[in-house]
Amino acid sequence: MLINRLCLIGVGLIGGSLALALKRAGACAHVAGFDQDERALSEAMELGIIDSAHTSLAQAVSGSDIVLLATPLGAMPALLQQLAPLLTPAMLITDVGSAKQCVIDAARKSLVGRIGALVPGHPIAGTEKSGPRHAFPELFAGRMAILTPLPENDAAAVARIRALWETAGATVELVDPAHHDRVLAATSHLPHMLAYALVDCLARMDEREEIFRFAAGGFADFTRIASSSPEMWHDVCAANRDYLLAAMDRFEEHLRRIRVAVEQRDSGELLTIFRRAKAARDRLASRRRPVSE
Amino acid sequence: MLINRLCLIGVGLIGGSLALALKRAGACAHVAGFDQDERALSEAMELGIIDSAHTSLAQAVSGSDIVLLATPLGAMPALLQQLAPLLTPAMLITDVGSAKQCVIDAARKSLVGRIGALVPGHPIAGTEKSGPRHAFPELFAGRMAILTPLPENDAAAVARIRALWETAGATVELVDPAHHDRVLAATSHLPHMLAYALVDCLARMDEREEIFRFAAGGFADFTRIASSSPEMWHDVCAANRDYLLAAMDRFEEHLRRIRVAVEQRDSGELLTIFRRAKAARDRLASRRRPVSE
Repeated sequence: MLINRLCLIGVGLIGGSLALALKRAGACAHVAGFDQDERALSEAMELGIIDSAHTSLAQAVSGSDIVLLATPLGAMPALLQQLAPLLTPAMLITDVGSAKQCVIDAARKSLVGRIGALVPGHPIAGTEKSGPRHAFPELFAGRMAILTPLPENDAAAVARIRALWETAGATVELVDPAHHDRVLAATSHLPHMLAYALVDCLARMDEREEIFRFAAGGFADFTRIASSSPEMWHDVCAANRDYLLAAMDRFEEHLRRIRVAVEQRDSGELLTIFRRAKAARDRLASRRRPVSE
Repeated sequence: MLINRLCLIGVGLIGGSLALALKRAGACAHVAGFDQDERALSEAMELGIIDSAHTSLAQAVSGSDIVLLATPLGAMPALLQQLAPLLTPAMLITDVGSAKQCVIDAARKSLVGRIGALVPGHPIAGTEKSGPRHAFPELFAGRMAILTPLPENDAAAVARIRALWETAGATVELVDPAHHDRVLAATSHLPHMLAYALVDCLARMDEREEIFRFAAGGFADFTRIASSSPEMWHDVCAANRDYLLAAMDRFEEHLRRIRVAVEQRDSGELLTIFRRAKAARDRLASRRRPVSE
């Protein structure tokens, strides 16, 4: 058995899916759930995601070998502070936050000498849905899970968290936290901003009824991520602010280049940009498995 | 039989799919294909999309009751000019262009007194793929086809083109051409610019290998349309330039508002925008059938 007792803090889509995957693999004997949202907590019990529901963090953590932080990023600093006095020497903590440096910074303040207990992580998987009822054990199958180990982590701790994700079907990559944050700002955080901006922009046009009525499949795909949790994405904006701003600036510069080319009827420039983008996107398509919901 | 002989000008994804749908419904006795690309033409023959292949426009048009223009927008003005002397009184022309005013303007110049023969159209369907081998008869099933009839169209002509799309499974809506162009600039042309800009922007970053390796499902969905035909989208930019520029400006203003809120850590503003966008996108999801490829 990989884990005797997993303490799941935040019983939503990501944490719930990992718990289901571990249980299905027979890799976890007991999942103790903690969540601020009591309805989510009882839903998670009904769905078999967790085996015990706790509104006391101390009770949830007690006797666990791994504590998984699966809350929005904004909740993590306070939770890390509350976790510090509850840690026993054998306990490991990992998280699923979409930004890593901010979690590490908060953990260094709270855990101090016990910082080696935290192996920060981020599975590159999800849907636009939230909450335990959308959790499913296959969410991480064939996906990538990034770990950003600290100098203070011992090899056994990293191996244990790696095994957790591999058991759920993910491929694990070890990456530097700052590098993670810069890359994810571009591939994930920026596209969410674009989708939110686009949908909000169209929803406020006079023709909004027709706009959504005449929307084709491309639009639906393009804006799917605008259905993601506003609270979670608010936290990501705060947590990865600087890299996100840099990515937004780079994007705006590229969009402006297209705008100028459209305005000046610069066919050569438009074709160059569109062809280069198509080639890059086609390469991506050729090495991915089909997109799942 | 709805159509004795359909003249298909442009045997790609859209025209090919309509021809297949009409033939499957037993609504078209013969499809005469014309295309500048001789390989596409012979592929369309092999795939049973067309029944005769022509490199002479006059031969393709001769004896047809309906001429369907299914080329990129940029090719239409010259084709309309070449079509003018080939038209017989009973012939109708329709097109599938993603912008309508430019097609109408070109047709008024070329067809002059015969302008009533053109019933402009635009099916709101497609994939990011191009060419006859990606055509399939279900492409328009459950989709919308917009017609933008002219004052010179008689009711029978509009009814005939409406029947064409309804036979292919589409729901037909009649819309004013300028209104069509303004709405489609927002729902379709702008998102394509954003997808091209994003992929091009990321493809030029130093970390581009990792950027595409760490891309999640959301990114793949978001950028799928960047695989669309550069030539076709170049033509759309030229054909719907003014409405597209206006849509890009509106979008940039909204994105800038998010940027400012991220920079100033304005939680209230970010949550307001994200929640409004999510509510609008969730309404869209609740009334659409699942997205097809």
